[in-house]
Amino acid sequence: MDKQSVRVRTVGILGGGQLGRMLSVAASRLGLKTHIFEPAKDPVAAHVAHLVTTADYTDEGALTRFAKSVDVVTFEFENVPVAAVNIIEPHCRVLPGRNALSSSQDRLVEKDFLSSLGLKTAPYANVERSNDIENAVVRLGVPSILKTRRLGYDGKGQVRLTHSQCAAGAWDELGRVPCILEGMVRFEREISVIAARSLTGEVVCYTPGENVHRHGILHTTTVPAAVTPAERDEAIAVATRILQALDYVGVMGVELFVTAEGIVVNEIAPRVHNSGHWTQNGCVIDQFEQHIRAVAGYPLGDGARHSNVVMTNFIGAEVFDAESFLRDPQIGVHLYGKPDATPGRKMGHYNRITGRA
Amino acid sequence: MDKQSVRVRTVGILGGGQLGRMLSVAASRLGLKTHIFEPAKDPVAAHVAHLVTTADYTDEGALTRFAKSVDVVTFEFENVPVAAVNIIEPHCRVLPGRNALSSSQDRLVEKDFLSSLGLKTAPYANVERSNDIENAVVRLGVPSILKTRRLGYDGKGQVRLTHSQCAAGAWDELGRVPCILEGMVRFEREISVIAARSLTGEVVCYTPGENVHRHGILHTTTVPAAVTPAERDEAIAVATRILQALDYVGVMGVELFVTAEGIVVNEIAPRVHNSGHWTQNGCVIDQFEQHIRAVAGYPLGDGARHSNVVMTNFIGAEVFDAESFLRDPQIGVHLYGKPDATPGRKMGHYNRITGRA
Repeated sequence: MDKQSVRVRTVGILGGGQLGRMLSVAASRLGLKTHIFEPAKDPVAAHVAHLVTTADYTDEGALTRFAKSVDVVTFEFENVPVAAVNIIEPHCRVLPGRNALSSSQDRLVEKDFLSSLGLKTAPYANVERSNDIENAVVRLGVPSILKTRRLGYDGKGQVRLTHSQCAAGAWDELGRVPCILEGMVRFEREISVIAARSLTGEVVCYTPGENVHRHGILHTTTVPAAVTPAERDEAIAVATRILQALDYVGVMGVELFVTAEGIVVNEIAPRVHNSGHWTQNGCVIDQFEQHIRAVAGYPLGDGARHSNVVMTNFIGAEVFDAESFLRDPQIGVHLYGKPDATPGRKMGHYNRITGRA
Repeated sequence: MDKQSVRVRTVGILGGGQLGRMLSVAASRLGLKTHIFEPAKDPVAAHVAHLVTTADYTDEGALTRFAKSVDVVTFEFENVPVAAVNIIEPHCRVLPGRNALSSSQDRLVEKDFLSSLGLKTAPYANVERSNDIENAVVRLGVPSILKTRRLGYDGKGQVRLTHSQCAAGAWDELGRVPCILEGMVRFEREISVIAARSLTGEVVCYTPGENVHRHGILHTTTVPAAVTPAERDEAIAVATRILQALDYVGVMGVELFVTAEGIVVNEIAPRVHNSGHWTQNGCVIDQFEQHIRAVAGYPLGDGARHSNVVMTNFIGAEVFDAESFLRDPQIGVHLYGKPDATPGRKMGHYNRITGRA
């Protein structure tokens, strides 16, 4: 890179899981170093990072030293405490910014934000005080899903309501923390748009992929999704609208329902996303490099794919079969180096190339 | 990976340059850690490695600790001192083995080895004692190239002879160390076969690429090379013969001349090779992962390419233009993170996809 135009030499990453690991690898491809900040010991991202800080997100000294050691800070998960961002920001830019975090950390705020853009979401109701849950069930009916407003992922922090008389018990089960009740969306398929926006405001989207979940965890993403050109265009327009509204910089995973009445937004994740892992074997520039390009101020890749791909996660003990997939010439295997294959844990994934795009 | 079948968790790599760096990234994809051993401070491979040892190749204690900390040792360059291998091997397997090192560290031994397999090489003569150089020039004529037998790379340690009366002076210029004089080969093109052999003896070759050098340094590799099917098959057969004869494990770069009289072997490099960098954007499994798979005892990828590629090196200050290549959607840019763009230094490369395979 031209010495004049180098804005970033080291990227700080909050979170040391598999997403931070693959971001770190992508940064190396662009000649950049990474510094991982992670409370847990021996994070898998540390295996491929230049520097690692093991400290809590409340450790002001560690966060300050971290911020001063890097040129930009990004994150691999949306639940970064805003208090940590407050400590980092006087020393170093955080991208995507706090707009993106505040809009995605609370399901109620997220739904209100999406509605304010005129986008469709599942019907929802706030459940915060004693009578809210009963009122919500009367309004939305069953089946419906009660979700904690904060800190849910991979199906955690959710209870499915099938009988309205069980509603109060479900809220008890979730610890009576602030929740939202979501009505069901009758959808044909769930798709994701992996979208990126650069510092200069350019938005680039990858081809929408179709997601299938098992036990609340992503199982496969199939690219391209079996949608009409009109549905695809609407999905990309919706994602673009969201990134622009947030003045977003980086990659975002936008989960959408395709319904008879058009595209409905399920949820947004202000980070690289499991449903974008297919780009590693389907595109010249994958979602991880796209994110690093965005936050480091470089131009984006164009999002085109050269191949159609089915991505499948290795969950828990499924990873013990990974070696058998190495023999298939159309498969790229990606393992995260996690020591314990506990049930439900994402251990790796594989991308099967199914044809030319 | 199945707990039973995991043979390797950490790969030791001798050498911390760009090849070690890209090997380390490939190892991470398979869930493996790496430990880099490199005498120079802050090697670029260390930016993406789990452990780094900074010590000399003569440091017995450091080599022993290194060997005990890993499950297999490999290397990124062919001039690893055999004495270092002697220290490592009682503790840990070294792959490719010492056969490969001894056959490639000395140009005379290498040429004798290739000749013993019945393969064609450039005509050559040993230059070791006072009268050798005159006798060699009489036999091979001019133009011809005087090369040090050891430690040459990227055109270093070579002098081109254009007049026979300058021969003695050329040898003086090279310090009167043991050399070989090589006669010229009238070739149509230079190609490389990037070949891999597994622990079980399976050999897999990538499509031959065509190399163009500038100032003795690789400039571009174009895949596929413009050769006939018969030439391609002969090139792959020659490479396969070499790997089998050495009981080789890992990736080897085999540089060949295509001549009117058939394939002539130029030289072999017992490691991943600059002319194989195109595989990063042309294949599901690139040469770096292929090498890690081989030395870690996993099955090899099949070597098929999905795209045609032209790889171009960024040499020295050329890297300052790298950012402009990021805008081309058909280009994958790969930078090595080296701090100083000194003349002749390999700083990165880019792969331009030129079509579907």
